Amino acid sequence: MFVYAFPTTADGQVKEPANLRDLGEPLIDHSEGQLFLNEAFKIMMEEVLCKGTDVKQKVSHKSLTSPLCEIAVSSLNKCHPRFFNQQFGGVDYHALAGRFLTETLNTNLFTYEVAPVFVLMETEVLRGLRQLVGWTEGDGIFCPGGSTSNMYAMNLARYRLFPEVKSQGVWSLPRLTIFTSPESHYSVKKGAAFLGIGTDNVILVKVDDGGHMIPEDLDTKINVAKSLGAVPFLVSCTSGTTVQGAFDPLDRIADVCEKHKLWMHVDAAWGGSVLFSEQHRHLMKGVDRANSVAWNPHKMLIAGLQCSALLLQDTTNLLKRCHSANATYLFQQDKFYDVNLDVGDKSVQCSRKVDCLKLWLMWKAVGSTGLAERVDKAFFLVRYLVEQMKKREGFHLLRDVKYVNVCFWFIPPSMRGKEGNADYQDRLAKVAPVIKERMMKQGTMMVGYQPLGNKVNFFRVIVFSPLVSQKDMDFFLDEIERLGNDL
Amino acid sequence: MFVYAFPTTADGQVKEPANLRDLGEPLIDHSEGQLFLNEAFKIMMEEVLCKGTDVKQKVSHKSLTSPLCEIAVSSLNKCHPRFFNQQFGGVDYHALAGRFLTETLNTNLFTYEVAPVFVLMETEVLRGLRQLVGWTEGDGIFCPGGSTSNMYAMNLARYRLFPEVKSQGVWSLPRLTIFTSPESHYSVKKGAAFLGIGTDNVILVKVDDGGHMIPEDLDTKINVAKSLGAVPFLVSCTSGTTVQGAFDPLDRIADVCEKHKLWMHVDAAWGGSVLFSEQHRHLMKGVDRANSVAWNPHKMLIAGLQCSALLLQDTTNLLKRCHSANATYLFQQDKFYDVNLDVGDKSVQCSRKVDCLKLWLMWKAVGSTGLAERVDKAFFLVRYLVEQMKKREGFHLLRDVKYVNVCFWFIPPSMRGKEGNADYQDRLAKVAPVIKERMMKQGTMMVGYQPLGNKVNFFRVIVFSPLVSQKDMDFFLDEIERLGNDL
Repeated sequence: MFVYAFPTTADGQVKEPANLRDLGEPLIDHSEGQLFLNEAFKIMMEEVLCKGTDVKQKVSHKSLTSPLCEIAVSSLNKCHPRFFNQQFGGVDYHALAGRFLTETLNTNLFTYEVAPVFVLMETEVLRGLRQLVGWTEGDGIFCPGGSTSNMYAMNLARYRLFPEVKSQGVWSLPRLTIFTSPESHYSVKKGAAFLGIGTDNVILVKVDDGGHMIPEDLDTKINVAKSLGAVPFLVSCTSGTTVQGAFDPLDRIADVCEKHKLWMHVDAAWGGSVLFSEQHRHLMKGVDRANSVAWNPHKMLIAGLQCSALLLQDTTNLLKRCHSANATYLFQQDKFYDVNLDVGDKSVQCSRKVDCLKLWLMWKAVGSTGLAERVDKAFFLVRYLVEQMKKREGFHLLRDVKYVNVCFWFIPPSMRGKEGNADYQDRLAKVAPVIKERMMKQGTMMVGYQPLGNKVNFFRVIVFSPLVSQKDMDFFLDEIERLGNDL
Repeated sequence: MFVYAFPTTADGQVKEPANLRDLGEPLIDHSEGQLFLNEAFKIMMEEVLCKGTDVKQKVSHKSLTSPLCEIAVSSLNKCHPRFFNQQFGGVDYHALAGRFLTETLNTNLFTYEVAPVFVLMETEVLRGLRQLVGWTEGDGIFCPGGSTSNMYAMNLARYRLFPEVKSQGVWSLPRLTIFTSPESHYSVKKGAAFLGIGTDNVILVKVDDGGHMIPEDLDTKINVAKSLGAVPFLVSCTSGTTVQGAFDPLDRIADVCEKHKLWMHVDAAWGGSVLFSEQHRHLMKGVDRANSVAWNPHKMLIAGLQCSALLLQDTTNLLKRCHSANATYLFQQDKFYDVNLDVGDKSVQCSRKVDCLKLWLMWKAVGSTGLAERVDKAFFLVRYLVEQMKKREGFHLLRDVKYVNVCFWFIPPSMRGKEGNADYQDRLAKVAPVIKERMMKQGTMMVGYQPLGNKVNFFRVIVFSPLVSQKDMDFFLDEIERLGNDL
């Protein structure tokens, strides 16, 4: 447990401040501060980056030296090659250097005068990402995460259709409906609730066995909604669903969106990085027909939290028109430079972090080919993992793997061949939580599990870290067997 | 100009990836990466933290060595003691070390299993901040900026009154209205637009000459809104307005909120840090009667972007009930630990950065007394600055200064005593932009200006960095005179 009590008096108030000292002089001693920072840097290099990436170390372990050291070693190490738990992990040193510089400069990305380099850099990075989508023009912005990017798309789609919503609210509008698959990210519902649209107005379109949205059902559901007096305005497709890693058929969905004149949003937070790979970008065929794309380079490209781009095909300044408040104390129109460089009013945030530098630096360092290589390598390792699974008893895949999410049940020896037993599913449901508890307590690796629809708890291993090798895949399978064979 | 072209082919596509190499081995070389990071760290120390805090250096200047170095030196330096432009600036080395560790660990603050230390630390830091507000219990969360914190408060207030909004949207509700002052932050209107409430339903309450909301007018406006069939649900007060630094009279506003049973939100993003100071916390008397408080330690306490806490008096788990989506792949209920520690569903974000560590480390390092000292010192320096202004000709304050925003016109010698001239206001409006352009081009310091209501462009200097001394105040005044005396 890591708890720290703040210095307060008995009645819960903050302690009386000492007398003011040397008020004419700065309160911060630079030499002392820089010494501390040097020490802190050494601890991070040693405890997180050297030990943390060493497979001989546990994924988490404990010790006590200084607070900083304690935090470093008590925290779960996502840089560890055996962290398979979620869609983030690993470390890229160029991206990390970019994050350090971002933190050191502490720039607020709202006006050109305070962020000249980063206003231009963000523009360039967004242009580079849009090129991969297939757009020569457009707009975009970095958001604090994919959920926010998805919400922005919703708000833009609503505003494009009914600009009066900005001043009058939703009351002046007919009931709006959003369409997405049941396997889409939960942020679609969170966003609908937050924006005053309501989760009931998120209509779930059927998926096929692989978890892909069925365009014919989308068409049907849109017609039903219209017949009930609602106004469909947005389809939120997914490129890389969270659990199964499914890619919705964008080209066929685009046909339906065009027919009904709906905004097509692609939540490619997880899957977007396939666009770097000539070999795998076909998974997102049709993405250039979308109105907006959310793409998180902090996931597969390990740029570091947060790095989520919302990309837009729009060239009418919709983002700014929808979100601007024209604050005169920030966005003065009588500045001596082109005030279109003051990008802050495109955001609903005021202070906005610089999220482009880490990606820019990494991209510049390894090139588009280097990033493509990481994507291709993840696919390669997944193929290897799946082949090995098929060679072993006890590993049952949910279905064929198309991306880098591998969903499977581990069937302990005592349960094999007993699929017909009445308690089989109940017993199977308990296997993954027990194995997970054991691996967490032993700290050897980390992987997630979940149920899905009528399917009981299964493991989902995410393979993408450029730190991972075939040996780690073998270790993963051995470890699941070791932890679960007695169940 | 700082522009970089991505490696693409002639038709705008990403260049073909090279053949995959060594796919069985990790793609990242740790020794090489760690060497790079060491070099990068040296550049940051040298170019930003050593040179950047030296008053003999310009606020911005240029040179060319490596990309990282180029970015560092081409960026505006907010650590510089003469950056008076906005409510962020300065550097605290403990906070910066906390940010470096945050970036190195790259933790996603959504479940206890991936963020055990930070889940507990966030709880502790929020508790510490709530104690300063005067609450022994409650809830809270760190948000990506004050605008988001304000939006959360709006959404919570709406949900408390009409929980059906989450599923049915705003259509099922009567027209809602929000009350705030015309000098409140623009995020109140941005939030109302984003949440589907609409900017027309943000009712502006009159302010007195000092920019403080008038409680009697609030009461009147609420009654008018009710008589028109609207349902008032939220008052957004401000502690420390952006331009004038005014503190709304919270105690008297609380009386009105109680009478009408409205949610009282305090946007203390800028002013909240006075709560550390025994001497100045009276400015927020009555804050303990609020339902929610937004407070950005990244401003006056220079914790680093982003560090914005939304604090709640609520003990009914409103935050989670309002925002949760209960995703089964993340928030499994059959985990081996107390799943109440999985705080992620309190947020509308999915991936959420760790924003507590930088504040925690700084707070632990200098104590509550050290933070109080910073606040008190800023007030002291402002008193000094105002006294010096009164001794000089040409500096006209907008009004008495109550906080650390000093708003003033500089009247060049050629305009003094000519207040009666027909073109006086037009000429005065042009003075600040010209002085600002000159200081930006010479890089000596940075300060903002803006109009307000019928008042033409005036300067607003923000004094709070612990790096600032009396000498910098004198320099500031000399420099304004030097740059503006010929106008």
